[in-house]
Amino acid sequence: MTNTQAQQKQSAGKNTRTAITPTREENFPEWFQNVIKAADLAENSPVRGCMVIKPYGYAIWELIQRALDDKIKDVDVKNAYFPLLIPLSFISREAEHVDGFAKECAVVTHHRLEKGPDGKLVPAPDSELEEPFVIRPTSETIIGDSMSKWIQSYRDLPLKLNQWCNVMRWEMRPRMFLRTTEFLWQEGHNAFATAEEAHEDAMKMLGVYNQVYEEFFAIGGIQGEKTPDERFPGAINTYTIEAMMQDGKSLQACTSHDLGQNFAKSCDIKFQGEDGQQHHAHTTSWGFSTRSVGGLIMSHSDDDGLILPPKLAPYHVAIIPIVKDDGSAVFEHCRQLAARLKAQGIRVHLDLSDSRSSDKMWSAIKLGIPLRVEIGQREMDEGKLSYVRRDLGKDSKAIVTGDEFCGTVQKVLDQMQADMLAKSTKFTRDHIFDMKSLAEVREFFKADKVGFARIDTSLFGADYDVLKKELSLSSRCLPFEDEGRKVLVGKSY
Amino acid sequence: MTNTQAQQKQSAGKNTRTAITPTREENFPEWFQNVIKAADLAENSPVRGCMVIKPYGYAIWELIQRALDDKIKDVDVKNAYFPLLIPLSFISREAEHVDGFAKECAVVTHHRLEKGPDGKLVPAPDSELEEPFVIRPTSETIIGDSMSKWIQSYRDLPLKLNQWCNVMRWEMRPRMFLRTTEFLWQEGHNAFATAEEAHEDAMKMLGVYNQVYEEFFAIGGIQGEKTPDERFPGAINTYTIEAMMQDGKSLQACTSHDLGQNFAKSCDIKFQGEDGQQHHAHTTSWGFSTRSVGGLIMSHSDDDGLILPPKLAPYHVAIIPIVKDDGSAVFEHCRQLAARLKAQGIRVHLDLSDSRSSDKMWSAIKLGIPLRVEIGQREMDEGKLSYVRRDLGKDSKAIVTGDEFCGTVQKVLDQMQADMLAKSTKFTRDHIFDMKSLAEVREFFKADKVGFARIDTSLFGADYDVLKKELSLSSRCLPFEDEGRKVLVGKSY
Repeated sequence: MTNTQAQQKQSAGKNTRTAITPTREENFPEWFQNVIKAADLAENSPVRGCMVIKPYGYAIWELIQRALDDKIKDVDVKNAYFPLLIPLSFISREAEHVDGFAKECAVVTHHRLEKGPDGKLVPAPDSELEEPFVIRPTSETIIGDSMSKWIQSYRDLPLKLNQWCNVMRWEMRPRMFLRTTEFLWQEGHNAFATAEEAHEDAMKMLGVYNQVYEEFFAIGGIQGEKTPDERFPGAINTYTIEAMMQDGKSLQACTSHDLGQNFAKSCDIKFQGEDGQQHHAHTTSWGFSTRSVGGLIMSHSDDDGLILPPKLAPYHVAIIPIVKDDGSAVFEHCRQLAARLKAQGIRVHLDLSDSRSSDKMWSAIKLGIPLRVEIGQREMDEGKLSYVRRDLGKDSKAIVTGDEFCGTVQKVLDQMQADMLAKSTKFTRDHIFDMKSLAEVREFFKADKVGFARIDTSLFGADYDVLKKELSLSSRCLPFEDEGRKVLVGKSY
Repeated sequence: MTNTQAQQKQSAGKNTRTAITPTREENFPEWFQNVIKAADLAENSPVRGCMVIKPYGYAIWELIQRALDDKIKDVDVKNAYFPLLIPLSFISREAEHVDGFAKECAVVTHHRLEKGPDGKLVPAPDSELEEPFVIRPTSETIIGDSMSKWIQSYRDLPLKLNQWCNVMRWEMRPRMFLRTTEFLWQEGHNAFATAEEAHEDAMKMLGVYNQVYEEFFAIGGIQGEKTPDERFPGAINTYTIEAMMQDGKSLQACTSHDLGQNFAKSCDIKFQGEDGQQHHAHTTSWGFSTRSVGGLIMSHSDDDGLILPPKLAPYHVAIIPIVKDDGSAVFEHCRQLAARLKAQGIRVHLDLSDSRSSDKMWSAIKLGIPLRVEIGQREMDEGKLSYVRRDLGKDSKAIVTGDEFCGTVQKVLDQMQADMLAKSTKFTRDHIFDMKSLAEVREFFKADKVGFARIDTSLFGADYDVLKKELSLSSRCLPFEDEGRKVLVGKSY
C-alpha cells in the first residue's frame, strides 16, 4: 500500500476538513511539527537545536518516566547521579567510542566570564581549563570510572545503576523530539562477572523497554539485534526496538547494549573472582529518551492532531459544558462530575473557560485527550452525557447516564489502550513485506511504498550496500523472531 | 552554650566509642564528610567540584523531589524543561544578574572535537561558536525569553512554571552537597499581572518550602527576608529559610525571590492589560537544591553517623537476624516480617548478608535507618522482637510481639518524625540570643559560641559591616516574626 492509499483508507468516511494542515499524506514531517504545535507540546528554543518542552509535553514525559522508573527499580537497578561534564581524556579511552561520540560534542573550555573591550561578556582568558570537558553525550566513561573504584570483588557484582539526566550531541539537522542537541533520557549501566549475565541483562532491559512500549505507549515495535554497522560505538552487540511510524519509516525507539569487556578494559573495571584471580567485568548500557515522545506522536496521531493512549495521557477525560447564555448550572454539574471522576483516579480536564463550545471541542481533539464528554442543559436535565473516544472519532459517540459513565470509564480507557496497541501492532505487521531479491527491495522503496522489506541476510554484500546508499535505507534490525536469518530494511528517523 | 558543652550534653550517657571520627565536637566539617562516607551517600568525582550522588544519597533526593513536586503541583505550577545552555547575550540582559552570576560559569566555546597533532582530542578550531554559551547557573533569562513569547494578554497570567534540572556555578572551594560546581535543583518561575500577586507568590512558595522542611526534613528553620546585600542579583526582595546546623552555623536552606519588573523589563515580558495598555509582568523565582541534603545531615546526625527522619528515609526499618550457626529458620522468619511490613507500605532493609551481626547493626546505624529490629532464635521462639529508635539509641529499646510491632510501626515512625522536628526547632530557638550591642555580638562569636545573635536593625551601619568582615559573619535574615525590626547574625555555610 502506498502512502496515498494508506491515507485515503484512514480518512475514509471522515470530514474532509482537518484540524492539522498539511495532512499526513500531504507532508508527514510538516504534519508532525504541526501536531506538536497544536497540542502545545514543545517549541524550538533560541539555542539552536535545543527545544523547550512545554508543560503538556513535559507531563507526558513525566508519565513515561514514572512508568519506566518503576519497572527499572523492579529489576533491582538503583538510581544515582554522575557529573554532567566528562574530561576529554575519559572520552578518549575507548577507541571506537571516540569515533562514534567525540565528534559533535559541546566543549567547555573556560570557567569564567569577564567584560571584554566593548563591554560585552567574553570567556576570561585566564580561566581557560587545562583539560577541557565535554558535556556528556552518554556516560559510559564517567560511570565506568566510578565502577572501577566501587567494584573490587565478585561480591560487588552485579552492580546495576541508572541515571535520569540530560545529554548533548550537537545536531546539524535538529527535529523536535526526534533529534535535538540536548535531550532527556535515562541511561542504565550494569556490570557483571560473566559474559552470559551481561548478554542476558542487555536482553532483559530491552524486554523492560518493550513492556513500556506495549503497555504504556501502545506501540507494538519489532525487537531485534542491530547489524554490526549500526551498533553503538564500543558495543559487542546492540539490541533495539524498531517502531514503524505511520509513514512507514522506522524509529529506533530505544537501545540496549552488550558492551562485553570493552569498557571494563578501557575504564579498568576489574574484580577478584571466586578463583582469587583478577578479571575484567562485563558491562551493559541501555537508554530511553524523549525521542520516544516523537514516536508516540507519529504512531497514533491523525489529521486532527494528537492521539494519546490513556496511560500516557495527562488528562484521561475532557469535560466540555455546552452552554449558550447562563451556563452556571451546567458548569456546576460538570464540576461535580469532574470531582467524582478525580476521586476515582481519573485525570480530568474540565474546560470552564469562556471559549466557544466548538473551540473547546477542537482543543480537546488536538490535545489528544482519550475521552471527550459533552454535557448541555438537556443532557443534565436527563442525568445523561455523551462521550466520544478520540481514536475512533464521532462514530464512537455514546449517550449514557453519569452513573454509567463513572462506572465504566476505566474499562473504556483500558479498551482504548488495548485497541491502540492492537492497531499499532497490526499496522506494523501489515507493512513488513518479504522480498527475495534486492531488485524487489529497490522497486518497493523507489515507488515510495510504506513499510519495511524483510530479506534474507544472505543478500548482504556490496550490492546491498550500494542499494542502501542509493535509497537512504538502512538495516533496521535482525528480528529476534527470525533468529538472525532475516533483516528488516527501511527508511528511518 | 559552647560547642563543647553542646557536645558533652549530647554524648552524656553514651558509649564513648563513636562510629564516626572525628566527632562533631572535634571537627564538625570533617565529621560531616565522614557521615556522608559512612552512609555511602556521595563521593567526589574526577571532575573538580562535582560529586557523584551514590544510590543511597540519590534515594533520599528522590523522596525529597516527590514530596516537593507534589506540593508544587498542588499550587498549580506546571513542570516544563528549558535548555541547559544560555547564550551569552541573554546572561548580559539584567545588569545586576551579570555581576552576580556571570562570573564563575562553565563556558561552551566549541561544538566538535578532533584529533590534535599528538593524536589527543582537542576542540576543533573550525567548530568555534559565534556566540559562546554558558551552562545555566540559573534560568531566569532563558525562561524569561519563553515567557515573553507566551504572555500576550492578562488572560495568559498568572503563568507558573517549574523545572527539575542540573545547574552549574564554578566553585573554588567545593564541599559535598553544600557547595558543588554542579548541583541538582528545582527552579520555579512565575509571572503575574500585579506587584501584589508577585509578592504574595514569593511568600507562598517560601511557605511551601517551609512545609517540606517541617513535614519531611523535620527541620524547624527561621523564615525571613534577606537584607539588601544578601539578595539574589536582580531581585527586589529575597525570602529565605535559615536552618541552624548543630555547630550553630546557618544553612540558607532555600530562597524565594520577588523579582519585581526587573527581569520582565530585561526579558521583555509584556502583556495587554484589561485597560488595553501594555504592562510589564511581575515575576518571582524560587529554588530548592541538593544542598538541602547537606542540611538534613548536619541537622540531625550524631557521632555514630546519619540520622534520617522517617519520611526521607529510603528504608524505615532495618531487620537484622541475630544468628550464630544455621540461621535459616530465623532468616525465613525475618523474611516473613519484611513481607508483612512492605505490604503495609513500610520501606524495609532486610539484611541477610553474611556479615557479622554487630557489623549489620553498625551498618544500619550509620545509614541512619529510623528503626532497627533485631530477632534471634529466642525472640523468634517467643514470637517477639526488639527494636531501637535510631535517634534515641539503645535507651529506647523495646521488646514487643511481631503483631504489636506491625500494628504500631507507623505510629512509632510518626512519633519519631514529630520528635525530630521538635528537637530541631527547640535547638534552633535555644540558640538564638538577643543582644543589645555589637560588642556583645563580637564577644559571643569570638568565644566560638553556638548560635545566632538577634539584634535590632538600628545597629546596622559601618561598625556592623566591620564586625561582619572581622568575624566572617553575615546577616542571615530579618525574621518574619520580628516584622523587620530584628536581624539574625551568624556564621554560615
